[in-house]
Amino acid sequence: VTANIGDVAQLAGVSVATVSRAIRGLPNISPATRERVLRAAEQLHYVAHLQAPRQVAGRTMTVGMAVPLLTQWFIAQVIAGAEGVLAASGFDLLLYSVPDDHAKQRFVDQLPFSQRVDGLIAVDLPFLPDEMDRLSDQAIPLVTVGTSYDCAPSVTIDNLDAAAKATRHLVELGHRRIGMISHFPPQALMSAGPLLRREGYERVLAEAGIAVREELIVPGNFAMEGGAEAMAQLLAVDRPPTAVFAQSDEMAIGALKTVRDAGLRAPNDISVIGFDDHDMAAFTDLTTVAQPVLHQGETAATLLLDRITGDGSGEVTSVVMPTEVVVRATTGPARSSRTGMAAAQ
Amino acid sequence: VTANIGDVAQLAGVSVATVSRAIRGLPNISPATRERVLRAAEQLHYVAHLQAPRQVAGRTMTVGMAVPLLTQWFIAQVIAGAEGVLAASGFDLLLYSVPDDHAKQRFVDQLPFSQRVDGLIAVDLPFLPDEMDRLSDQAIPLVTVGTSYDCAPSVTIDNLDAAAKATRHLVELGHRRIGMISHFPPQALMSAGPLLRREGYERVLAEAGIAVREELIVPGNFAMEGGAEAMAQLLAVDRPPTAVFAQSDEMAIGALKTVRDAGLRAPNDISVIGFDDHDMAAFTDLTTVAQPVLHQGETAATLLLDRITGDGSGEVTSVVMPTEVVVRATTGPARSSRTGMAAAQ
Repeated sequence: VTANIGDVAQLAGVSVATVSRAIRGLPNISPATRERVLRAAEQLHYVAHLQAPRQVAGRTMTVGMAVPLLTQWFIAQVIAGAEGVLAASGFDLLLYSVPDDHAKQRFVDQLPFSQRVDGLIAVDLPFLPDEMDRLSDQAIPLVTVGTSYDCAPSVTIDNLDAAAKATRHLVELGHRRIGMISHFPPQALMSAGPLLRREGYERVLAEAGIAVREELIVPGNFAMEGGAEAMAQLLAVDRPPTAVFAQSDEMAIGALKTVRDAGLRAPNDISVIGFDDHDMAAFTDLTTVAQPVLHQGETAATLLLDRITGDGSGEVTSVVMPTEVVVRATTGPARSSRTGMAAAQ
Repeated sequence: VTANIGDVAQLAGVSVATVSRAIRGLPNISPATRERVLRAAEQLHYVAHLQAPRQVAGRTMTVGMAVPLLTQWFIAQVIAGAEGVLAASGFDLLLYSVPDDHAKQRFVDQLPFSQRVDGLIAVDLPFLPDEMDRLSDQAIPLVTVGTSYDCAPSVTIDNLDAAAKATRHLVELGHRRIGMISHFPPQALMSAGPLLRREGYERVLAEAGIAVREELIVPGNFAMEGGAEAMAQLLAVDRPPTAVFAQSDEMAIGALKTVRDAGLRAPNDISVIGFDDHDMAAFTDLTTVAQPVLHQGETAATLLLDRITGDGSGEVTSVVMPTEVVVRATTGPARSSRTGMAAAQ
């Protein structure tokens, strides 16, 4: 029996993702840990397995990954996370770009991956029930990231709760006019995430006795430019928002650009909170809701490999990753509330 | 004879990349252009070709792409550009991650792609002459991005010239103490780009009669954190630089964070110029050297498809893409020079 990456992880007392990183010489790992992992791999002759020939026991040694948009930071990170774990187990990664409904339909109709891969990871793709049936009917296992279905293991976050935390952060700072930069325009693929985040936003407003104003919810296309345009739209409404929750850091950073260009400052004139904890968030002092992104890709790959190799329990595992508000410099007390506090002092 | 994507481009009077975008419903294309492309595709029955079965004339209908680091913005953009063109021609994309010398050696030794793909695109990978020989000996065509070799078509920029332009911009602003945040640490893969950029920097300093100071050239690992650490190191030297050229926008943005955290401002206290024109550059008002990144991926894929289908001339084409300095808000006159000018007025 050949040792698998899980055996190495167990022997070294670290996660599968750490084994993957150590073996591939990637950064973010201490020399001591790397040493321990390499020793475990050597003991188990794991290196030999890494260099095994392509075709193993009738397998293609390839995993498919279907994603909506390669240029998006979140997507690139999830791919990188999965790729690391797959490569450490000797699997290649076949990428399928599924940018819109038309492409999704073609993907499901043609099942291009069928017989070319041993398993499929679908990231942020909103499959309809009959589409999921067709995918599940294939002889290969499927794992989803970003959306969850009854019939396949998934890795997600609690989008509703995460958005509620973001909105609550703004409410607790005294904001009452809270805008949201939200989902894709209708022509693009719409996964459940943006809708659940909107629900979280609306629930917290309701709890705080704040009426939802439709003109304060504008689409930003999950891109910097879209965020910039959305903020321009928000600044132009009657009684503009004093705080904005952007559903991605890329949109938040675009929105902050518009704020600066308008001669305003965050958080003095307007507070902005993003979503993701993009690499760039720390460097632009952006308050955000952090989610573990690389780790979602790593976990999806691990779940899929368990299925492919039969190592897992076979149960449908739904991993829900934690999120948390990271307060930096772009959110602060509402101006009226600040005045109020000053008056009280 | 089935029409190929080049025929559609010709009939519609647009580039192959535009055809790819239009057919896949991606943004950044006018409705009129999209309409024209779709009409041309229909006339040529190109849609039928898109949905052709996987195996065409003994081909795998798959292209391999070997890249050093999936999480890097430049790499993700090049992949996205290539993927668009490949998908529009019905080709799948198989990704190979080659993050270090060890992985590169394994890649060349095992030729894992052999017989699995119809062609290979290698991005920013520094192959040694004998490694290139082995890759070229395979029966499949190869195109490189970021580095160029005699025996394969390539898509690059003139790194030396681009770095010279960046450095000249700082010299012309009156700076004499000019730092550089540069290449990977020695343990990672080192492609020619960073070395050529260093050469461009040193030549312009020499032209201006400025001696190179080794302590002003610090590595930044092509990541934001590395850039931040490098700038901290630069600020701590005797007679610190008044201007810094960072070899990537990600490092420049990290460097600017350190500048802010030190209570300094760009460009008043220190000028910073980046490299790439990352999406984020416009949004952080970063002066930079722009290169067309998505387009490098698109062009590499087009060159490779020409080879695969035999449509091209068969000559080794080296495409060198243009670069230009984009002046934004993070570079300005050197302080002494500013004082000088004030005194002169």
